[in-house]
Amino acid sequence: MSFNVKILGCGSALPTTYRNATAQIVTHNGRMFLIDCAEATQVLMRRHGIRFGSLNHIFISHLHGDHFFGLFGLLSSLGLMGRHGTVWIHSPSRLQNMLESEFSPIDIKELGFEVKFAPLDPEGFALTYDDKNLEVYSFPLRHRVATWGFVFREKPALRNIIKECIEQYGLSIAEIVAIKNGSDLRLQDGTVVPNRELTIDPPKIKSYAFVTDTTKLRSVISAVKGVDVLYHEATYDNSFAERALQTYHCTAGQAAEVARDAGVGKLVIGHFSGRYNSVGLLEKQAREVFPNSIAAWDGMEFEV
Amino acid sequence: MSFNVKILGCGSALPTTYRNATAQIVTHNGRMFLIDCAEATQVLMRRHGIRFGSLNHIFISHLHGDHFFGLFGLLSSLGLMGRHGTVWIHSPSRLQNMLESEFSPIDIKELGFEVKFAPLDPEGFALTYDDKNLEVYSFPLRHRVATWGFVFREKPALRNIIKECIEQYGLSIAEIVAIKNGSDLRLQDGTVVPNRELTIDPPKIKSYAFVTDTTKLRSVISAVKGVDVLYHEATYDNSFAERALQTYHCTAGQAAEVARDAGVGKLVIGHFSGRYNSVGLLEKQAREVFPNSIAAWDGMEFEV
Repeated sequence: MSFNVKILGCGSALPTTYRNATAQIVTHNGRMFLIDCAEATQVLMRRHGIRFGSLNHIFISHLHGDHFFGLFGLLSSLGLMGRHGTVWIHSPSRLQNMLESEFSPIDIKELGFEVKFAPLDPEGFALTYDDKNLEVYSFPLRHRVATWGFVFREKPALRNIIKECIEQYGLSIAEIVAIKNGSDLRLQDGTVVPNRELTIDPPKIKSYAFVTDTTKLRSVISAVKGVDVLYHEATYDNSFAERALQTYHCTAGQAAEVARDAGVGKLVIGHFSGRYNSVGLLEKQAREVFPNSIAAWDGMEFEV
Repeated sequence: MSFNVKILGCGSALPTTYRNATAQIVTHNGRMFLIDCAEATQVLMRRHGIRFGSLNHIFISHLHGDHFFGLFGLLSSLGLMGRHGTVWIHSPSRLQNMLESEFSPIDIKELGFEVKFAPLDPEGFALTYDDKNLEVYSFPLRHRVATWGFVFREKPALRNIIKECIEQYGLSIAEIVAIKNGSDLRLQDGTVVPNRELTIDPPKIKSYAFVTDTTKLRSVISAVKGVDVLYHEATYDNSFAERALQTYHCTAGQAAEVARDAGVGKLVIGHFSGRYNSVGLLEKQAREVFPNSIAAWDGMEFEV
């Protein structure tokens, strides 16, 4: 199943000429999800040729402007584009208060489609979305305001039945379903054919984790354990460790320590401070700790 | 005195790849003013190399998103840039309610500078800003929500004294001030030297008017009477007259009728519907009524 990520913005609070603030698109098996929605996200989607009319689920990590100021314009535009149905917003509960308040910047009752809210769980690793093939979990980070990370994880697929076996044993639909779920086959003469002779392993499940903005946290290591790709904030280079601590952010080295200790497949660092035109130094510092690291750029696209 | 306008965005509700929604910078004698602040205005200012740290006055015509969704990000960025002093927002009073409400997208008390509000007068042509050289008036338009236009008008300068007269008559400071204000000079022998022999006319005052979004209005003609440059919305070409009426917008022809009937110097049409990639047709239709018309583009700059 296709599973990829497009970075629309990997800058931090102040947008620069080079970098927009946080927004990224996760596409899984043809379904599109938006994580964070900084100012100008809808403009960037247009520029990248991303058709967002069918977007159904938006995940907002926290309510700092560089992560959600684009939501008002995006929702308005969906309304103007004649969108119907429901758009779900998985976010801190305060965003629902904001959009439903008397003085909200947009009147969500007038958009022409329904906006529903899934408030993020403040406690721990919690399911916030699932469909047939994918689950999305949220988990709390530690920042100046309530903030969450997300894990997008494929559901384990059923075992693949070996086609020849269907004819060989004259399998019924019920038997096929049972075998795909892991059962052995008992023949009429009492012989048992073990499942491993009837099936092959399904494709390995893949997972993606998004972590920004946060101080370095042990609980993140367990939340993102073994994911294929981890996007982790690295607002500063290692020489700003003190400032990172004060502002509840991470250095490139800390992001790489999380990646290494969680045993992820690949690390993408982002959420770079506006002071960096080039982030080569941050990439180098991450690679010293975790070699399979890469620095994000606006427009970057990768498969999970 | 320098007096110019830079169009940051001249599109309407839906931003396109070619056009951003409404925002423009008026600069008069070194002072910068922002009219409307669509999403991504701060990004566009950076891209155009406009330093907005010293921006003190922002004028918001109405509370449709394509005219103010960029304000949250702009104010936040000013705060992050260490801005002090006061930023005035001349806007519908509801914007103050929004920004001061419990669930405002930004906490304006935490920005590090003061935000003050000048609610626009719902009644008529009303002064909302003035300094030594310039006055800004607001006047109501007719749209789906309360909307205002603006006139930026230079104050009449004092008359210029003819330098030779100062020595010839041995003028005191008090006499010079009186003559610059238009008085005649009475000599000790009783002779009166008329002001016109002592002074020359000051430079002609210049004025700029901004009108969007609105249905065609007779009151606009008197409000913008004789301005040097009129920016007037022309959301549609003439064939969409019915739709313009329904949505409280204007056609290119209607904008030009306002310009002609108000006797302005030059018309700049803007606020184009997203359906137009090229607006050559709209410019042509405006010129048929008012020859000195031009269609705006994002990045356009002109002197008033």
